[in-house]
Amino acid sequence: MKLINLEESDFDAMNKRYRTNFINCLSGFKSLALAGTINNDGVTNLAPVSSVIHVGANPPLMGMLMRPNTVPRHTLKNILETGMWTLNHVSEDFYQQAHQSSARFDKEVSEFTALGIVEEYHSSKAPYVQKAKIKIGLSLEEKFDIQSNGTHFLVGRVTELILPEDIIADDGFIDLEAAGTLTVSGLDSYHKTNKLERLPYAKVSNL
Amino acid sequence: MKLINLEESDFDAMNKRYRTNFINCLSGFKSLALAGTINNDGVTNLAPVSSVIHVGANPPLMGMLMRPNTVPRHTLKNILETGMWTLNHVSEDFYQQAHQSSARFDKEVSEFTALGIVEEYHSSKAPYVQKAKIKIGLSLEEKFDIQSNGTHFLVGRVTELILPEDIIADDGFIDLEAAGTLTVSGLDSYHKTNKLERLPYAKVSNL
Repeated sequence: MKLINLEESDFDAMNKRYRTNFINCLSGFKSLALAGTINNDGVTNLAPVSSVIHVGANPPLMGMLMRPNTVPRHTLKNILETGMWTLNHVSEDFYQQAHQSSARFDKEVSEFTALGIVEEYHSSKAPYVQKAKIKIGLSLEEKFDIQSNGTHFLVGRVTELILPEDIIADDGFIDLEAAGTLTVSGLDSYHKTNKLERLPYAKVSNL
Repeated sequence: MKLINLEESDFDAMNKRYRTNFINCLSGFKSLALAGTINNDGVTNLAPVSSVIHVGANPPLMGMLMRPNTVPRHTLKNILETGMWTLNHVSEDFYQQAHQSSARFDKEVSEFTALGIVEEYHSSKAPYVQKAKIKIGLSLEEKFDIQSNGTHFLVGRVTELILPEDIIADDGFIDLEAAGTLTVSGLDSYHKTNKLERLPYAKVSNL
């Protein structure tokens, strides 16, 4: 196994497409969801997101990174318009459709319609993906503008959640593997998971 | 499959430990790395992190969420002191040690020493985990304080990278599965991955 050691000038020297693939892989395996939104004219939008993180449990908060608004970004625009969005876990039976929703559809075109993905509505104004097993409704709490590259970090509060009861363990753990939730690496590599184990709470006295 | 529909009052009604497990699972599969830091007295620190996301490729940026400083947080304190940290991908051969590094060691105790994890140094002042296959050095660019719960979102620039040459594809894609990088769900569930496929760039004309 030959190791290589790269520094900033090496990243600068990479061609754009290569660097995009390369740097996108560094963060490790990523979450995979479809973000559902609606604008004030009632046009819905769907986009794959892989930069979602846990922010806190009480109140229940999640964070999501969004690209700059320099090209049309319907998801970000809709969230800022309505203050709401949904996250819908992506599983093996529809990851190819989910990936295809990243194509640049016109703003009048709903990815739901174009891709034949059925919408579903609950308390949130924003649409859910009917076939997703885990559906999360969020309201926008905070937006941070990242100066280094013009991206935005949104913090949302979980206002609603629809999921199968039988994947929740007695201690609150949700079995994502049983739900079929996938993970993604880089821009386009989709993966199933195989659980190794759950480990007990770490204490110094365990040593 | 019986579905349940939860709203904010249901989260409020959960006991603390249950809610922590539960909400931590919602973001989906997470990245898994050990964050290596050093303070100005030369004491090193190691902590597992699972809230790392890709922020941008040019310049190469990554984001990481950190808990509030209300209890001692050596990782955050050290990053703010030195402006540097490392991220070291966790693989199957040391995930149990990595998990154990989350125990509350005293500030004078290095998790490297306590857990027998060997340090390695390159250009960064911060220590790397020798046995990690993918090692990333970062410098702090921006820090955002999340008002909703007192957490912090750090944006770091990748300054250095050490990885095996043979896991990099011709188009820049890094084969994390070949590197043995794991993913985590919730607080404590560790998973290997099985690649389904890489999908081509999505275009409207593919429909």
